[in-house]
Amino acid sequence: MARIERVEAGYYRIPLPEALSDSTHGTIAAFELVTLRVRDADGAEGLGYTYTTGRNGAAIHAVAAREIAELATGAEAERIEALWQRLWWALHYGGRGGPSVLALSAFDIALWDLKAKRAGLPLWLLLGGHEPRVACYAGGIDLHLSAAELVAQAGRTLARGFRAIKMKVGRARLGEDVERLAAMRAHLGADFPLMVDANMAWTADVAIRAARAFAPYAPLWLEEPVAPEDVAGHARVVREGGLPVAAGENLRSLWEFQALIAAGGVSYPEPDATNCGGVTAFMKIARLAEAHHLPVTSHGAHDVTVHLLAACPNASYLEVHGFGLDRFLEHPLRLEEGRAVAPERPGHGVALDWAGLAPLAAA
Amino acid sequence: MARIERVEAGYYRIPLPEALSDSTHGTIAAFELVTLRVRDADGAEGLGYTYTTGRNGAAIHAVAAREIAELATGAEAERIEALWQRLWWALHYGGRGGPSVLALSAFDIALWDLKAKRAGLPLWLLLGGHEPRVACYAGGIDLHLSAAELVAQAGRTLARGFRAIKMKVGRARLGEDVERLAAMRAHLGADFPLMVDANMAWTADVAIRAARAFAPYAPLWLEEPVAPEDVAGHARVVREGGLPVAAGENLRSLWEFQALIAAGGVSYPEPDATNCGGVTAFMKIARLAEAHHLPVTSHGAHDVTVHLLAACPNASYLEVHGFGLDRFLEHPLRLEEGRAVAPERPGHGVALDWAGLAPLAAA
Ligand SMILES: [Mg+2]
Ligand SMILES: [Mg+2]
Repeated sequence: MARIERVEAGYYRIPLPEALSDSTHGTIAAFELVTLRVRDADGAEGLGYTYTTGRNGAAIHAVAAREIAELATGAEAERIEALWQRLWWALHYGGRGGPSVLALSAFDIALWDLKAKRAGLPLWLLLGGHEPRVACYAGGIDLHLSAAELVAQAGRTLARGFRAIKMKVGRARLGEDVERLAAMRAHLGADFPLMVDANMAWTADVAIRAARAFAPYAPLWLEEPVAPEDVAGHARVVREGGLPVAAGENLRSLWEFQALIAAGGVSYPEPDATNCGGVTAFMKIARLAEAHHLPVTSHGAHDVTVHLLAACPNASYLEVHGFGLDRFLEHPLRLEEGRAVAPERPGHGVALDWAGLAPLAAA
Repeated sequence: MARIERVEAGYYRIPLPEALSDSTHGTIAAFELVTLRVRDADGAEGLGYTYTTGRNGAAIHAVAAREIAELATGAEAERIEALWQRLWWALHYGGRGGPSVLALSAFDIALWDLKAKRAGLPLWLLLGGHEPRVACYAGGIDLHLSAAELVAQAGRTLARGFRAIKMKVGRARLGEDVERLAAMRAHLGADFPLMVDANMAWTADVAIRAARAFAPYAPLWLEEPVAPEDVAGHARVVREGGLPVAAGENLRSLWEFQALIAAGGVSYPEPDATNCGGVTAFMKIARLAEAHHLPVTSHGAHDVTVHLLAACPNASYLEVHGFGLDRFLEHPLRLEEGRAVAPERPGHGVALDWAGLAPLAAA
């Protein structure tokens, strides 16, 4: 079993082709990318990464470059569970969430990539192997768009090969949300999979009112109606709102998912491998959802995550996110009849264009 | 109302006079101190700080120096609630815990110091003013000590003026914990306030067994029997263990305390102002405890926290912690008949020896 010889962290600030917006993060002009490369003593290399909507990137990089590099160097790369536990507890005081977990997530992704490469297997097969073609949707970050602009954007999204779309809600007046949703439903047809995402804009009572107003337009789910800490509020929205609820992109551990699932607060658990604790935590969350007779969907980092959902019998839709990492990828995500296809290359198969990223390195 | 003109962050690595140990953090040879000074346009200055057991400090400093300095400069310093909300949400993605919240805590402490100084009031009076003399205990970090060494250390602690002591538990065998506790109880007498702290070493069932084994020696509370995420486990330990439970030093928001308190999982909520979201969050947690007919105790940073407990009718013991910040303070905590006394100087009254700290600056 080879030991970790080198952990190398990178930090980039990547401007978006056009600024995006949602109800919580306001205008997003750039995202931050933190990369983490792990090389073992045999020269094999794994790649992990995480990202933010524009803040905390320097802190994530500090944890990766200072703490994780020091703690992990010399450890057995293949004993991921052992390493994960060691890092979780070494970083616990002042960690246990936030930038520390995003850095740990990137590291964990790199370890799984390395393991799969060494085994000569694509990650989705290493993880169990269910179905490489995964239903997916285009995640629009489009709260700023009018109903007409939304519909026009949807046309372009369909032309790119998508057969499911998520749109933002949470405008100042509920009537605006309903109007935009109604326009999309009219344009896309009754059975088209259309989700709505409130990005924690509401209290539980406001969310229940919104869910009831949206119900005639049959969104597949209502995402993040309330703050992630409001477990009881989530459960009320599920019970009283009349729509399935997706949530999880702002939960930072298996245990936060456990609490929300056990409380009946989520219909579509939605972990993000780059912030929930990596592949290790994502797969446990997916299996926990399965044990509760729930599907699992995903947030962010679709190039890695397609492998994870491809290993799950309870896979729901993969989010194909709106951030512009594609132009720095050697192999952009492949869509086939509206489904994302997990690559057959060993590991997760993501290769970054380091030369292209170099000018975007953050100080 | 004056605006924030400058936010200045510092980062220091402070070796301990002698290495300490507990069941989770192993040996602690140094702690990290992150300082945050806020100056307003009138030249008034507030001081905040946070600390770690040795990791994540660079990340906390990155959040303070990069994110908070940029977000807060130019804002109205006295509108703390507004600033807190703005920062919480600006740092939310990739934040919402971990290093981001420790940085926010330090910033918030600085804002309250500034406000109290401008008002010409000691912080405990600004916050409502209950009783400036606060019961306190010496928090030993002493899992490595034998029963005889523990008793010898207790003698020195009593000589320093303390009238309550907390010791660590969580050794490899429960019998060792019981033996050490029995020796301390025999030495200190039946009514002496003696607490035990397991630092999350156990599962709920192991903790219940330990609590029952400790009960004959009547510890005032059993601290952190299980992991902070295990809300149901805390509630079981309270109900089945037969000892009051203290917890909170590893909770990072008002909402995490709300969930634990509402579940009946804690008898002595124990926020740390330097990691729960600052004075703002600490006081809300203290008032939440009061609303639930619970006392409030504290963790860490006793020099600031003595003011917070001095403002609470439900104040329990102040922890006087084991880290060696005292030698960098102009005015070390004053004990009077075993009680800590909140200073009458404006603000929290903590002044650091910057020249003494300078050689310990971390890169
Ligand atoms: Mg979302
Ligand atoms: Mg403790």
